[in-house]
Amino acid sequence: MSFSQSHLLGIEPLSPSDITAILDLADQYVDLNRRDIKHSDALAGLTQINMFFENSTRTQSSFELAGKRLGADVMSMAMQASSIKKGETLIDTALTLNAMHPDLLVVRHPHSGAVDLLAQKVNCAVLNAGDGRHEHPTQALLDALTIRRAKGRLHRLSIAICGDIAHSRVARSNILLLGKMENRVRLVGPPTLMPSQIDEFGVEVFDDMREGLTDVDVVMMLRLQRERMDGGFIPSEREYYHRYGLDAEKLSHAKDDAIVMHPGPMNRGVEIDGEIADDINRSVIQEQVEMGVAVRMAAMDLLARNLRVQPPDVMA
Amino acid sequence: MSFSQSHLLGIEPLSPSDITAILDLADQYVDLNRRDIKHSDALAGLTQINMFFENSTRTQSSFELAGKRLGADVMSMAMQASSIKKGETLIDTALTLNAMHPDLLVVRHPHSGAVDLLAQKVNCAVLNAGDGRHEHPTQALLDALTIRRAKGRLHRLSIAICGDIAHSRVARSNILLLGKMENRVRLVGPPTLMPSQIDEFGVEVFDDMREGLTDVDVVMMLRLQRERMDGGFIPSEREYYHRYGLDAEKLSHAKDDAIVMHPGPMNRGVEIDGEIADDINRSVIQEQVEMGVAVRMAAMDLLARNLRVQPPDVMA
Amino acid sequence: MSFSQSHLLGIEPLSPSDITAILDLADQYVDLNRRDIKHSDALAGLTQINMFFENSTRTQSSFELAGKRLGADVMSMAMQASSIKKGETLIDTALTLNAMHPDLLVVRHPHSGAVDLLAQKVNCAVLNAGDGRHEHPTQALLDALTIRRAKGRLHRLSIAICGDIAHSRVARSNILLLGKMENRVRLVGPPTLMPSQIDEFGVEVFDDMREGLTDVDVVMMLRLQRERMDGGFIPSEREYYHRYGLDAEKLSHAKDDAIVMHPGPMNRGVEIDGEIADDINRSVIQEQVEMGVAVRMAAMDLLARNLRVQPPDVMA
Repeated sequence: MSFSQSHLLGIEPLSPSDITAILDLADQYVDLNRRDIKHSDALAGLTQINMFFENSTRTQSSFELAGKRLGADVMSMAMQASSIKKGETLIDTALTLNAMHPDLLVVRHPHSGAVDLLAQKVNCAVLNAGDGRHEHPTQALLDALTIRRAKGRLHRLSIAICGDIAHSRVARSNILLLGKMENRVRLVGPPTLMPSQIDEFGVEVFDDMREGLTDVDVVMMLRLQRERMDGGFIPSEREYYHRYGLDAEKLSHAKDDAIVMHPGPMNRGVEIDGEIADDINRSVIQEQVEMGVAVRMAAMDLLARNLRVQPPDVMA
Repeated sequence: MSFSQSHLLGIEPLSPSDITAILDLADQYVDLNRRDIKHSDALAGLTQINMFFENSTRTQSSFELAGKRLGADVMSMAMQASSIKKGETLIDTALTLNAMHPDLLVVRHPHSGAVDLLAQKVNCAVLNAGDGRHEHPTQALLDALTIRRAKGRLHRLSIAICGDIAHSRVARSNILLLGKMENRVRLVGPPTLMPSQIDEFGVEVFDDMREGLTDVDVVMMLRLQRERMDGGFIPSEREYYHRYGLDAEKLSHAKDDAIVMHPGPMNRGVEIDGEIADDINRSVIQEQVEMGVAVRMAAMDLLARNLRVQPPDVMA
Repeated sequence: MSFSQSHLLGIEPLSPSDITAILDLADQYVDLNRRDIKHSDALAGLTQINMFFENSTRTQSSFELAGKRLGADVMSMAMQASSIKKGETLIDTALTLNAMHPDLLVVRHPHSGAVDLLAQKVNCAVLNAGDGRHEHPTQALLDALTIRRAKGRLHRLSIAICGDIAHSRVARSNILLLGKMENRVRLVGPPTLMPSQIDEFGVEVFDDMREGLTDVDVVMMLRLQRERMDGGFIPSEREYYHRYGLDAEKLSHAKDDAIVMHPGPMNRGVEIDGEIADDINRSVIQEQVEMGVAVRMAAMDLLARNLRVQPPDVMA
């Protein structure tokens, strides 16, 4: 099983074999993280720089822990969104960091495509930790690992992604990954929160939760991202919960052993009922976080191995 | 000498033997910290996460250095008080971190009891770095180590804790610790800055500094915490210094070899005269900071040893 | 070649031999940083604390990486300028940190002289990472290393420092260093942006860019620091670029093989044309960043070696 990439910019460029390579190695890192001594030297002597132009306690912590547990020299930089106003300046920042000879650059940026642009300017491995509404590949990979461990496989499953699809890079990366691995994906939510080009995804779309959840293996809830809604329809939380929030009754339409997922942080009582979130027989929300560290360890490890063989070319 | 705890949530649950175990090991870490090579591998392979919901440069630095010097993988998270509005969210944050398999979780929180609550939800060792007006156990332990090294013992001493007792978790933890070790504790300050339930502490209370300091071995000054005073009596700084600020004349009522302490950061000219703070024959304020790193190293080391024997149960 | 210093507070106290010692060792660290495994144990067991009272992503990152690559336990503290209002408090902060037994203290402060003051109060090695308009020694050293590697020597060169000299500690440290190494330094810029005591520097001054650049080996542009201009002449960006911005025409007056430098971050189209900044045949701006990490590794390594021989005395 081989991993052929120089960067992890999205799910789109990955082959099923790339995806499987990451998940297989991540399984080993889950075991490491559960041990007393949770530290390896896989990245010893390498430099990892985290550049988060958007705040994200959860994702940044996960990447930081992943790098430290692999023995990398890790530096997390607090980039103020305000300091980066023009594309030019982002490039200058990238070139400056590149001159410090990092091996792994983990980047989150509010603009779709910013991370791809940056990857063209540096000669280290770049990992996309979320760019605009574009991709969030490590989230899709950790979701995939969670599903594979819960269901014993990652193909021919029926998976409902529910809620605020339009504003969600998590949804987009998940749709791509689950499609590549030959699963049936349904999108469930209000038409106003669906992306405009749905057809290209090859998914089924539902407006009604009960219908959409019928007989699915996996219910993946999304965070209602009110902060990303500029004008247009903004539902009240009460109304949204009534129609699209996951509660026991709606969940009863899914398969008996369906699992419930959420990328966090949750709005309890908005997109999901608190009791369902905490139900250890259904909810794998904590497992998702655990898999997140392992998947990031695996992705960085594999990229570093390729880096030693052949560093990325810079298109200056 | 044994240490029986799974967490360090406060002084209240500690036995005198627990306290002595920490102080004895801390003495060894003082020696390590004074060496050229101040690094051990006592926590190698373990993960320490610092979650400070209140800013504290001093305490956070001390914990961070302590963990790094013991070889732990240390991650310090900047938690904005604003991101944590409801108890629910604190629990979700705790569960998220717990899923990343930390071994040691160091928490400061503005609400009394928040750290205890959090400790019930995770299966790693939790250290309270200050919660509301409740406890600040490592401060009391570092004060105890400073006193024990200066006085040669930690029992049958007469100790005056002076100033803004009502708002001080430092005072509360110190009263508990010094009482457990069989010292005589006096509280000195304006009645408006005394806690409401004084009787339960078994202490003597004085309104007059000269009277309160008479023949004490230790004078422990507190920071005047104007930021915690909501309404009610707020003294002017000049008036406060005149009546309760420690100056040479007031200090002359204490024993000739009495030591002067302050947890920092100091308001010079408010609760303490700058010359007294800097008098190396009386003031042990710098020693307190030094002991802080050593006590935190000792506490984390002992908790990690117990963790390897028996991880804490989670009350979900 | 020996390095005789206990601190690196500025270029002023350094001898030519000190400067050469740092640059020679830095050359070796450039090689290390270009390797796969870019990590040494030169500072293993030592504690480095970064205290930045002014934000500086670039300089702080460079020092942080430098320390981590040398195996130090590195702690970076976010000091809010607001928390430091009086000289007294700066001293208390310094004494507090000193009590934690750091070996290397890296300090940036908005007030000229603050770092020198602080160095008198601690018994570790202090590195000035920029203080007010006074000095920024590691910037001058990295510029020197960049020049020496590009030109093959660091003496008898003709160097033009251009732009906002008055507000620039970078200019001041460079003038001192280049003078000590027996180069000819020209200052080029509007009279309103020249320092008031120019005579003491032994430099030539030009108001006209074409005249000032004629036949120089090195063109060092400075950032226009509008944020430091309090009242007085503030040029429009367009007008400034027209008269003092480096473009191909103005650069044509310099030697054919003249190199172009900028300490960053750049205002493209203000003090420098973007195409010149990116011209890999003329611009060494990325090399400057690369040399920055190596020079800081060398300076900290040399200070740590001296520290082990003879710790600095504290003038309490």
